[in-house]
Amino acid sequence: MSAIISLDMIRDAREALKNVAELTPMVTSRQLGDKLVIKSENLQKTGSFKIRGAYNKIRSLSPEDAARGVIACSAGNHAQGVALSAFRLGIRSVICMPEGAPVLKVQATRSYGAEVVLVPGGYDDAALEAVRLAEENGYTFAHPFNDPLVIAGQGTIGLEILEQQPDVDQIIVPIGGGGLISGVAAAVKQMRPNVKIIGVQAATVPSMFVSARNGCITTVKDGPTIADGIHVLTPGDLTFALCQKYVDDIVTVTEDEIAAAIVALMEGPKTVAEGAGATSVAAYLFDRVDMSLKTVALVSGGNVDITTLSRIITKGLQKTGRIARITTKLIDRSGSLAKLLQVVTESGANILSIDHEREDTKTEVNSCIVNLTLETRDPEHILTIRKQMREKGYMLYD
Amino acid sequence: MSAIISLDMIRDAREALKNVAELTPMVTSRQLGDKLVIKSENLQKTGSFKIRGAYNKIRSLSPEDAARGVIACSAGNHAQGVALSAFRLGIRSVICMPEGAPVLKVQATRSYGAEVVLVPGGYDDAALEAVRLAEENGYTFAHPFNDPLVIAGQGTIGLEILEQQPDVDQIIVPIGGGGLISGVAAAVKQMRPNVKIIGVQAATVPSMFVSARNGCITTVKDGPTIADGIHVLTPGDLTFALCQKYVDDIVTVTEDEIAAAIVALMEGPKTVAEGAGATSVAAYLFDRVDMSLKTVALVSGGNVDITTLSRIITKGLQKTGRIARITTKLIDRSGSLAKLLQVVTESGANILSIDHEREDTKTEVNSCIVNLTLETRDPEHILTIRKQMREKGYMLYD
Repeated sequence: MSAIISLDMIRDAREALKNVAELTPMVTSRQLGDKLVIKSENLQKTGSFKIRGAYNKIRSLSPEDAARGVIACSAGNHAQGVALSAFRLGIRSVICMPEGAPVLKVQATRSYGAEVVLVPGGYDDAALEAVRLAEENGYTFAHPFNDPLVIAGQGTIGLEILEQQPDVDQIIVPIGGGGLISGVAAAVKQMRPNVKIIGVQAATVPSMFVSARNGCITTVKDGPTIADGIHVLTPGDLTFALCQKYVDDIVTVTEDEIAAAIVALMEGPKTVAEGAGATSVAAYLFDRVDMSLKTVALVSGGNVDITTLSRIITKGLQKTGRIARITTKLIDRSGSLAKLLQVVTESGANILSIDHEREDTKTEVNSCIVNLTLETRDPEHILTIRKQMREKGYMLYD
Repeated sequence: MSAIISLDMIRDAREALKNVAELTPMVTSRQLGDKLVIKSENLQKTGSFKIRGAYNKIRSLSPEDAARGVIACSAGNHAQGVALSAFRLGIRSVICMPEGAPVLKVQATRSYGAEVVLVPGGYDDAALEAVRLAEENGYTFAHPFNDPLVIAGQGTIGLEILEQQPDVDQIIVPIGGGGLISGVAAAVKQMRPNVKIIGVQAATVPSMFVSARNGCITTVKDGPTIADGIHVLTPGDLTFALCQKYVDDIVTVTEDEIAAAIVALMEGPKTVAEGAGATSVAAYLFDRVDMSLKTVALVSGGNVDITTLSRIITKGLQKTGRIARITTKLIDRSGSLAKLLQVVTESGANILSIDHEREDTKTEVNSCIVNLTLETRDPEHILTIRKQMREKGYMLYD
């Protein structure tokens, strides 16, 4: 297959996006090391890169198509990208979302001027309804990834990275449907073929990873992931072909690793990434790539659901040994708890919370279960604490 | 009192800081409105503005003093500011911290090359030990705020704001000891006297607020705050005088408002602020200042304790009506829970968690207490849900 996403297409998109998309900053931080640079598309308008491709698609509509409007199906970043792009171009937009979509995503999409249709059922039902409405009303369907104009729009990030970080050796890019990496890889490989392009997926939804290994487009079975932005079960044919052509390697990261990367981005560069956006940093931090190369990790978005962020943070801190949960049994008499806490404090941990369970039927009448949540330094520190507690006669669960 | 912090002093500090401190970005976001601009000192080296004053102080030591080294007392941002400044200048630094200081702050300070002395007891004990060690070893004591060179260093932020945002009408600055606002106000008022300078403190520790009202330095009684970076009970005499001279108004914000501002900064500009840093944004969002003016909110730091961030987020979401906790009683038979959840879902809320309490001794044998955590739109939405539940016969607690 020939290079159907030409540099001219991408440069043309960039010109069109001049006053629409931000030139997002490259960010470094001491905690992440001096080889890693973040390309911050979480700081892009609407909170993700999606505006680039959506705008480039919608601005290219014929006057007749533009007059009828566009439709998309998304409960996430694509919805906001399409809505804002259409608004900026003075074009009507309709977004189908599954009924259970987060309240705030619906509000945000409406606030950009889109008409939101809440469709009973799941994502697939919403997609079918979008196709039906498109046919019925002559709307143009704005595909989230499998479209040359969308891909060319995302490719503008590749041009920016080469200009902002000329010494880059390797670029890590999250993969959902593959539109982002297809565009970035097309841009970079046609200008600097020696720069490595590494794709990253959630290990629970490895559609492009498996497709690349199989050499053909493969649908993976559904799995849970906090990286909802790259939760795509089947790659597009166009994006699959471009990944085959341009991408050097695809790796996967676990949920815990994604959570740990979100925490690392908050603590280091003080920036908020969503799960999908943090996968690129997770791939670097957890050694899926050559860490000796000057690396740009593309953080694709920052629209994390704040109501679930607490759970993600806890997961991330546990993964890196910064929080430990230790459960022990205590003879329930005056002074025994104080003594336990002294032992823990002497081990160098801070106690974040203590939780008694006196009613547990498994324990004897005069004893109780104590759950400790501790702030710790790293996994070795936790092992040391557990060892010290055992040596002092405490029976530990797990 | 005359202007003892001259523009020349501040300009001189700026020259010295050229390759040491970052020119931190001005950030806007649609969610925060088009009148508000963030000066992002949370993105400064070491995660707060403190490097500016500390470096300006330490670089001014005589060769003899420099040879002996510096000492400071801090478990927070000042510690890292002093440590990195001393390291950059090739000077020895000793930091006294209270024994219970967070593991990570100790590690971070050590990683900048400082010698950390953990002192038994609280902050006051650590401060006494620092003074003792300074006398014993001839170290220079680096005060966190009440020092002209420190204040001049922080004042460099004022020069930057005027250049980066020439149309600014009003600047909101967090106040702890008052070093930051004294420097910023001295810089701004000597160049652009019509720009308003508003100070903000935590309502639980309003030392400068009370001192300004009393017209004399006043020690307030201790109170809890998530804004630990501005937890100072007594202003300095120098900073008090400068605030009297240059600051137009001082306001206070509640803990809930600070938490809500932290959430707003994560959701809007995707940036991580610590409690102290977010107070300036809280003052704006919760209407303590004239919101019609072009306003710069100085976000002073981003070193929030991630292990406690979950609680802060929950507090922030509750404050703005984005999370609701509703407790009701249910007759414990098959189908009653499903029916309750249907009622809640129809009200437009998403259910984040459900928690049964069957063993509660207050409830009858065949009933149970159900705690619902809901994702909601705003306070009005919560009132509507509670009303609808009552109308359907559910008895609500609280």
